[in-house]
Amino acid sequence: MPAVEGLMQDYELSIQHVLWRIERMHPKKEIVTKREQGYHRTTNGDMVLRINQLAGALKRLGVKPGDRVATLAWNNYRHLELYYAVPSMGAVLHTLNLRLFPQHLEFIINDAEDKVLFVDQTLVALLKPLAGKIPSIKTIILMTDGAPAPADHGLGEMLDYETLLKAENDDYAWPKLSERMAAAMCYTSGTTGNPKGVVYSHRSQFIHTMGVLQADNLGLTEKDTVLPIVPMFHANSWGLPYACGMAGCKVLFPDRFMGDAKSIVELAEQEDATILAGVPTIWINTATFLKESGKRLPKVHTVICGGSAIPRSVMEAMDGLGLRMLHAWGMTETSPLGSVARPRAGTDPKDELNARLTQGMIVPGVEIRICDAASGEELPWDGVAFGEIQVRGPWIARGYHNGYDPDKLTEDGWFRTGDVAKISPEGYIQIVDRTKDVIKSGGEWISSVELENAIMAHPKILEAAVIGLVHPKWDERPVAFAVPRPEFKGQVTQAEIVDFLRDKVAKWWLPDEVRFIDEVPKTSVGKFDKKVLRANAAPIKESAAPAGRA
Amino acid sequence: MPAVEGLMQDYELSIQHVLWRIERMHPKKEIVTKREQGYHRTTNGDMVLRINQLAGALKRLGVKPGDRVATLAWNNYRHLELYYAVPSMGAVLHTLNLRLFPQHLEFIINDAEDKVLFVDQTLVALLKPLAGKIPSIKTIILMTDGAPAPADHGLGEMLDYETLLKAENDDYAWPKLSERMAAAMCYTSGTTGNPKGVVYSHRSQFIHTMGVLQADNLGLTEKDTVLPIVPMFHANSWGLPYACGMAGCKVLFPDRFMGDAKSIVELAEQEDATILAGVPTIWINTATFLKESGKRLPKVHTVICGGSAIPRSVMEAMDGLGLRMLHAWGMTETSPLGSVARPRAGTDPKDELNARLTQGMIVPGVEIRICDAASGEELPWDGVAFGEIQVRGPWIARGYHNGYDPDKLTEDGWFRTGDVAKISPEGYIQIVDRTKDVIKSGGEWISSVELENAIMAHPKILEAAVIGLVHPKWDERPVAFAVPRPEFKGQVTQAEIVDFLRDKVAKWWLPDEVRFIDEVPKTSVGKFDKKVLRANAAPIKESAAPAGRA
Repeated sequence: MPAVEGLMQDYELSIQHVLWRIERMHPKKEIVTKREQGYHRTTNGDMVLRINQLAGALKRLGVKPGDRVATLAWNNYRHLELYYAVPSMGAVLHTLNLRLFPQHLEFIINDAEDKVLFVDQTLVALLKPLAGKIPSIKTIILMTDGAPAPADHGLGEMLDYETLLKAENDDYAWPKLSERMAAAMCYTSGTTGNPKGVVYSHRSQFIHTMGVLQADNLGLTEKDTVLPIVPMFHANSWGLPYACGMAGCKVLFPDRFMGDAKSIVELAEQEDATILAGVPTIWINTATFLKESGKRLPKVHTVICGGSAIPRSVMEAMDGLGLRMLHAWGMTETSPLGSVARPRAGTDPKDELNARLTQGMIVPGVEIRICDAASGEELPWDGVAFGEIQVRGPWIARGYHNGYDPDKLTEDGWFRTGDVAKISPEGYIQIVDRTKDVIKSGGEWISSVELENAIMAHPKILEAAVIGLVHPKWDERPVAFAVPRPEFKGQVTQAEIVDFLRDKVAKWWLPDEVRFIDEVPKTSVGKFDKKVLRANAAPIKESAAPAGRA
Repeated sequence: MPAVEGLMQDYELSIQHVLWRIERMHPKKEIVTKREQGYHRTTNGDMVLRINQLAGALKRLGVKPGDRVATLAWNNYRHLELYYAVPSMGAVLHTLNLRLFPQHLEFIINDAEDKVLFVDQTLVALLKPLAGKIPSIKTIILMTDGAPAPADHGLGEMLDYETLLKAENDDYAWPKLSERMAAAMCYTSGTTGNPKGVVYSHRSQFIHTMGVLQADNLGLTEKDTVLPIVPMFHANSWGLPYACGMAGCKVLFPDRFMGDAKSIVELAEQEDATILAGVPTIWINTATFLKESGKRLPKVHTVICGGSAIPRSVMEAMDGLGLRMLHAWGMTETSPLGSVARPRAGTDPKDELNARLTQGMIVPGVEIRICDAASGEELPWDGVAFGEIQVRGPWIARGYHNGYDPDKLTEDGWFRTGDVAKISPEGYIQIVDRTKDVIKSGGEWISSVELENAIMAHPKILEAAVIGLVHPKWDERPVAFAVPRPEFKGQVTQAEIVDFLRDKVAKWWLPDEVRFIDEVPKTSVGKFDKKVLRANAAPIKESAAPAGRA
């Protein structure tokens, strides 16, 4: 007897289902967007009419299934309308990262061959350096509350978002979609080489959204009011826009006031936010503001934090303010939800904080393994061995737009994340480095991140980056680049740092040299730019620091 | 430019992923099964070894991808092993409902062409009437803790489950599966005509499990201990076995003590259950036992209830005992999760109970509409209009095994549930009848269920069933069959009942006749058997009860 087929419906998983839910199940739920003065308010029900109009406008502009529609926008209601209209009509939503350098933006728009570009009025200036360099863009649409485009942008005529919508009916005939079709694309931030385009399918977005809503993942409910401070141009704002739609949450958008702790706290307070989401730097600022102002946000039950590891001090500060942080890990290529750090049942209260500071447990729907960089062998989950995280699952990338970097997928179909981690027997993931930054010394690996954290714990040190430099005997040896705190400039020595590290890391991890600099070079998104450090670093002085060798 | 394909992994959604999770993420979690004396205990980690052995044994017995493997078993750890091993090796798990009549069991086994049958030692007697009538079954495997099969069953040689496992390795080479392959099948209980086989795919089971775990659905977490009293042969125990595996819950199984409130409460109490799940009759017994014994279950935070509507008195009694009920709706054909009754944000506390007594909100992943039976037109969600519930989604049936009843799918691809409901503007579903029981009178519908409930509220009435009987002028008119409470037998009149109803239902809903009977006939699963009532009912006496006509 041949294999039997299931007899369940061939229902194409798509964003259209989320659109159905906001229209039918949650029409009265509000979307509130911060403005210069006060807030813009709308409801799902009213927004759905505009989403229909927007699709009509796009069709009239010649946008066809598969065409890329770019956005250069903050977190606001118009951006959310684009999140629904573009994929639901079969086109591809391409969210541009407004923090990228102009040459990266230019590269990305050309690589994606974007056809239409929507830009917030306050962001038009970012496009000025691109004038004449983005030939695929046929139409630019300005999103504004009435203010004109800044003069001299050199980009030619811009259409007006609101005018376009007003000309359309509010009952667009949505096409039948296939779940494998592209719904959206987002470029990696490109800390090495050019950015690469990740292309999400309707299927991956749908299943990812189902995953985000699981109680042990982000667990949003219809009773939640969510304030996503993580940008909508950054890995789909961690999937929150669609997750909020599917669950029926009230949504709060900070627009361009993302970095303004006072605005964020006021928005959360006045609109009864229950869940906040953002990267660690946001919470550093928020905690400072709350301490200074004496304000509190007692209705917030969860602060989702990802993008980079949460410093212990930040989690402790936020906990102390009654804001419980939930640490999550992922990347553009993982849609992004990969893991969530909730302490397991039966965790000793004294171990809870440590558990919450890990990258947590891989979420249902994603499989994980760690592999030795040299041999490729899978490593045990013993909390000691560390290797590259490789993942697979329905919302994990299999490749990039235009075929870049085909080696990111292993021969047996797992995605190489480039993150290096150990996994405990209980399944807690602890990232220790990036594969490109981990230091290969004498056949063993040294985590540059762990060394940096150990050095930055020194009271005289502001920040420190560690890289591996070529060594004739050990292949590579660690060299630290440390920035003293202003008050200790010129008053801290290599010996002092190495001594400080002796009881904190293995002897063979001790850096061969500590070089003092004024500032660690950073990438466009604020991460240490070790590429620049490496390119400019003088070779290791053989005689310099024997203390660091076995 | 043609439509662009997404670049996400072609990861086949399957039960193998849940198996991966229990093995890698949750190996220490316990599965506890009630025994005659004490409990059987195992862990996921140990169980996975046995699941591998079981797959080896099935392969040795000649089970191939697509073959149906039947189970006649209670909720216990061996049944759970079959839940994982059979689909993960590519075969189809067919759970037999042990409450069916022998002729239905015979029909089902032959219709499914089951090849192998696993039977609990305590259930062998149910197979005796089938001796010689189920030729597709090549092998019967007895699941026992050492007790022999009862004598004289007439079914020939039975193999022993534990002996088979012991002969196998604990590292089965799981095959690569396609997500559209059948994973399991389950027959409808067949209140009308023969039972019909619903065939779940790996894809539908995977996505359904993701749905079950959403915070606003059943919301299981890794910290939960779940006691599924709903049978594993009844719509996959509402998806709980896989949901518990995916989330990493501790699982408690009542085995054949499902109907024994004392055993259930002791198991829940001793093993720290946090979530219970079962049909309303279970909770009627449980509430009685708790009241009489004075015991309480303070660690239980949720009691999931489905299968049929919860009587208000039951929910109030359980709430009063600190056991908060969560009402859910679904059916075999919907995997089964369809809707969950959680009050919406902002619900007035005095309306909460009413909200929780509805069938609730359709869950993400499923779309719903109500349609007029006559015209097929979609009806508004105004809380008044009622029509047949039709649903579509990735875990909704598109048909039955062997092609029975092709009309269950509408021309535009929605599944006709046969349930009649109204939907409020907020999205609350309120089921009022079954399409086959609703009474068509003068072009309008009368809900037999609402009439029954109104009659059963009369203090002299124990139970009542209402059917439509042919009427020359009105097509159909309602006739009630009422069972007086024993102490009022012969002491209640038709006029008394009709008078009682006058301020409770529309005048044209009043039954033409009330006929007093000793007992309402029931189906094998305990529902009112209106088929029998209809077949034996005398025609309406034209002169009988003019009160009931407009």
